[in-house]
Amino acid sequence: MTIYQSLWVKVALGGTFDPLHEGHKRLIRKAFGIGKDVVFGVTSDEMARRKFRRVLPYNLRVRNLKDYVKRTYGVDVRVEKIFDIYGRTIDEDFDIIIVSPETYENARKINEKRIEIGKEPITIVVVDFVLAYDGKPISATRIKNGEIDRFGFRLSQDTYDLGSYPTPPTLRLG
Amino acid sequence: MTIYQSLWVKVALGGTFDPLHEGHKRLIRKAFGIGKDVVFGVTSDEMARRKFRRVLPYNLRVRNLKDYVKRTYGVDVRVEKIFDIYGRTIDEDFDIIIVSPETYENARKINEKRIEIGKEPITIVVVDFVLAYDGKPISATRIKNGEIDRFGFRLSQDTYDLGSYPTPPTLRLG
Repeated sequence: MTIYQSLWVKVALGGTFDPLHEGHKRLIRKAFGIGKDVVFGVTSDEMARRKFRRVLPYNLRVRNLKDYVKRTYGVDVRVEKIFDIYGRTIDEDFDIIIVSPETYENARKINEKRIEIGKEPITIVVVDFVLAYDGKPISATRIKNGEIDRFGFRLSQDTYDLGSYPTPPTLRLG
Repeated sequence: MTIYQSLWVKVALGGTFDPLHEGHKRLIRKAFGIGKDVVFGVTSDEMARRKFRRVLPYNLRVRNLKDYVKRTYGVDVRVEKIFDIYGRTIDEDFDIIIVSPETYENARKINEKRIEIGKEPITIVVVDFVLAYDGKPISATRIKNGEIDRFGFRLSQDTYDLGSYPTPPTLRLG
């Protein structure tokens, strides 16, 4: 499903990116499918810790992200540290902002603010979650809670709701 | 802001399209900016009348829409009559579905249904409203209520909230 041929599109994509999971990778793939000029907003440690108790330091998260993008798409990307949901998206113009359904409302807030100050809204692209083994979205919270790994496989027996979901064959016990 | 060069992208765009206003035109422009294969879902009269008391008959709405697209983008488009929010988006595969913030939730429902039956979700592109003279979105409801015309200009003196919003110079009285 390669979609666009594009050069001049400036794309914004924000997150904490810890750990870098399949959901992030789908967003990143979509971003590079749309344009080559992708600007990543990565949450500051302070901002990230409002959501997650434990999080890798900013520099390490950026390094992991940059390494992944370089390895996968062959480009060095620009990363901006962000301290709120807006990041650079008010001062700078972007053609596209990529979000998941979970962060869609942030993109709406960005556009509301832009419209308020007389700027054009940014076109929002919503890329759906990647689902884990149990049909629920992969998320950093679930990974950090030890429910699933970053590929969406089941990790902990304790949190497994017996009988509700099938276990993938590769993980089936005994 | 021409954005993409694209050929193989299949785009879905649904609505009642009566009257065809600036908000629709922005959605249509975005659709053709993304791909040449745009499929329009146009609500049946029955479906349309659940939302609007008065609406042009389906055939006329389709003719207006097709004429506009032909005149503006030089193409004959495929139109499908739709009887619910899903239209053809469950049976057929699309790369992109274009919505406004008002219809974003419909696109989410489409994806939930697709995921439920094991299909890939469709990437959602949310194009912001076009604002009327008063800073509120242009919508068919407001046009039908006689508040604004389809370009977003003020129509009725009665609904004008004195002092809250500036009147555009071209509409200023005496």
